[in-house]
Amino acid sequence: MVNPVWIIEKKRDGKELTGDEIRGFIEGLQTGETTDYQATAFLMAVYFNGMTLQETIALTEIMLNSGERYKLSHIPGSKVDKHSTGGVGDKVSLILAPLAAACGLKVPMMSGRGLGHSGGTLDKLESIAGFNVNLPRDQFEKVLADTGVAMIGQSAKIAPIDKKLYALRDVTGTVECIPLIVASILSKKLAEGTEALVLDVKTGSGAFMKTREQAKKLAKMLIQVAKKMDLPSRALVTNMNQPLGFAVGNSLEVLESIQVLRNEKQGDLGSADLKELTIQLCAHMLDVGKAVKNVTEGRALARKKLSDGSAWKVFQEMVKIQGGSLEQIHDTSRLPLAPQVAQLKAKRRGYVNSMDTEMIGKILVELGGGRKKASDTVDPGVGMLFHKKLGSRVQPGDTLVTLYMAEGTKPDAILETLTSTIHIGELRKPVSKLVLEIF
Amino acid sequence: MVNPVWIIEKKRDGKELTGDEIRGFIEGLQTGETTDYQATAFLMAVYFNGMTLQETIALTEIMLNSGERYKLSHIPGSKVDKHSTGGVGDKVSLILAPLAAACGLKVPMMSGRGLGHSGGTLDKLESIAGFNVNLPRDQFEKVLADTGVAMIGQSAKIAPIDKKLYALRDVTGTVECIPLIVASILSKKLAEGTEALVLDVKTGSGAFMKTREQAKKLAKMLIQVAKKMDLPSRALVTNMNQPLGFAVGNSLEVLESIQVLRNEKQGDLGSADLKELTIQLCAHMLDVGKAVKNVTEGRALARKKLSDGSAWKVFQEMVKIQGGSLEQIHDTSRLPLAPQVAQLKAKRRGYVNSMDTEMIGKILVELGGGRKKASDTVDPGVGMLFHKKLGSRVQPGDTLVTLYMAEGTKPDAILETLTSTIHIGELRKPVSKLVLEIF
Repeated sequence: MVNPVWIIEKKRDGKELTGDEIRGFIEGLQTGETTDYQATAFLMAVYFNGMTLQETIALTEIMLNSGERYKLSHIPGSKVDKHSTGGVGDKVSLILAPLAAACGLKVPMMSGRGLGHSGGTLDKLESIAGFNVNLPRDQFEKVLADTGVAMIGQSAKIAPIDKKLYALRDVTGTVECIPLIVASILSKKLAEGTEALVLDVKTGSGAFMKTREQAKKLAKMLIQVAKKMDLPSRALVTNMNQPLGFAVGNSLEVLESIQVLRNEKQGDLGSADLKELTIQLCAHMLDVGKAVKNVTEGRALARKKLSDGSAWKVFQEMVKIQGGSLEQIHDTSRLPLAPQVAQLKAKRRGYVNSMDTEMIGKILVELGGGRKKASDTVDPGVGMLFHKKLGSRVQPGDTLVTLYMAEGTKPDAILETLTSTIHIGELRKPVSKLVLEIF
Repeated sequence: MVNPVWIIEKKRDGKELTGDEIRGFIEGLQTGETTDYQATAFLMAVYFNGMTLQETIALTEIMLNSGERYKLSHIPGSKVDKHSTGGVGDKVSLILAPLAAACGLKVPMMSGRGLGHSGGTLDKLESIAGFNVNLPRDQFEKVLADTGVAMIGQSAKIAPIDKKLYALRDVTGTVECIPLIVASILSKKLAEGTEALVLDVKTGSGAFMKTREQAKKLAKMLIQVAKKMDLPSRALVTNMNQPLGFAVGNSLEVLESIQVLRNEKQGDLGSADLKELTIQLCAHMLDVGKAVKNVTEGRALARKKLSDGSAWKVFQEMVKIQGGSLEQIHDTSRLPLAPQVAQLKAKRRGYVNSMDTEMIGKILVELGGGRKKASDTVDPGVGMLFHKKLGSRVQPGDTLVTLYMAEGTKPDAILETLTSTIHIGELRKPVSKLVLEIF
């Protein structure tokens, strides 16, 4: 038996650990030979000294093998999933999963809940009354086989060591650490049985990776480890310098997704970036899943299946089979919406030049639409609609944001914080690209 | 209430914490608001990013105030203690404490037990049958007032947060961290009520601080923090490139100390370095305690009180009043001694040029004379006598070390390890000074 202290000291001193050393240390968490307080000291040493590719692969394998591993090979078709590192207003999965299925893929999507400033797909889906994200394994497989897509929460039996480590990282300042993020993402995705994976690595003011360099590093390491684990994958580094689309908040994001799926006109509210990113990600899913000859063909197919209503059809089937209210998605005015409305108006003329997107995510948490800690409950009806995007021209008095708040919320402080997140300048700054890098 | 995660993140990001932030985090360990696994992540972040002088002062104060603080001002005389950062064969306290008392100081010495390769004064004292190191506060003060010296273990009521943090550091690779060492030493010394302090900061192959630079850094920070806490102090950086004196092992070290106190001749066994360091430290204790005009006068007084038997007289009084066997110290053949003896002989001609002193300390642990973990018990009778010191000339067949082992110990592997710790070269290397720096 390897002494946990030696492993901590070796990592602390910047030396490479063997797979057996990492295994002994991490698996010791389940037997009690490694204590929680040794694990967190180790995680902080990893935060400072990183992990080599070999170490990260070993950690990924250990977390993967700590729980159940789904096999989906008996289901016909190419199983491809997408994972996003998390952002604000990122409702891509709600449109992308049915769209990819409409294009012929099987999409076995296990998602998480929102935590901190970043939203979660499960919370969005649960805005739809009755939608059941807790399908047992056999039902998950049946829904996937029948409709081409299933969107569920992660079973407790999947990668339990990742759950344990994540809970420790969350309260010890060791979340933002590339090898730990890589092992956490890939162990879960490998366990859910997907056969290929597209990764949306967010960068910018609303992302965990604030700089493009960090995001590139994460994207590359994800691809490298996935390759060693025989999982074909692609990573896109994409912009999270503003909320994606126009809606931030669970129910409002479902509303926006349905508008995109139905190709509806949106007044002064814009989903162009959301739609474009969804098409791009779908094209790469089709490419890594070998359902098309190349990404260009994938893009064409995705555009077609979105515009001809095929994706919308799959979405409705999925909502129905997972128990969600069809009335609500057919008449979105029935989706939950908070009763108190306020508007943030522009005070000056100019252009929207930057947004503090993380703060926008935190405002949603303040409104009750997100979680400070995992045990918090979420109000689906609160949120924000953004009437202006980066690069938009504004006049004094223009509505910048419409706020939906629960009864009794005092809007003044929130409006003040919100004002500080939207920076309006005299001259228009160029708006950077949506997809920055592809690996 | 400050969120513990923010404190960890702030330290992780290299920012300076306020005293209130450190207090909230550390005191939270007692209320449960900070968990052990958060504390260890914090300690590892401190290991990497250090602490400023202000932070270290704050931590020292918090640990000091977490328990009882003795006041010795009602006892006449200048109360001065000495602390060593720990080494191999370091039995200085056994001679120095009674010597300083013989020179007119009051020495309120609270010591620790051995852990890892480094020995502890309490274990050495307990080689003397009946010697009681667990005196309650009132008896401690009485012994100190009556004999001028009291040597006891640290009460559980002294700096309990230091005990808690030390236990966590010990198993998470965060022991060797200068600000944490400083706060741990000074909080305990301030709590015991000493009015001045001399610090023996060891450097070299048998010390925790392997390089002179590290040792200097530790010495300087100790002095700076002590000054801010109104504790007059001096730090000597001293050599621990070989065991101090000739004996390593609890009972054998008592034997050597008694020989020095009695000014006995020692055959081929040499205590010159031990005696010299004791005189130097005593001179500085007298100087910081304002019992002499300067260090030179202190040295002269110390030499006189050692050679005229005054220190030996105080030692006997202390042993008697703390319940130890006078028979054993008067006839040292009655001290416990392990029955199995082996000798390590030189195989080649040359000079002793270096020693792996930490490994020598670890061999003592292997023999049963030290502790791997705090709950281990110690065999007082095992140990090693070194017949050659650094710079000694050796001929093939000369005895280098005499080993004392418990019944049933297999000597071969131990002798082999021991051989590898003593490096004999053809040319004599200069022997570096005993006292390297004075702060």
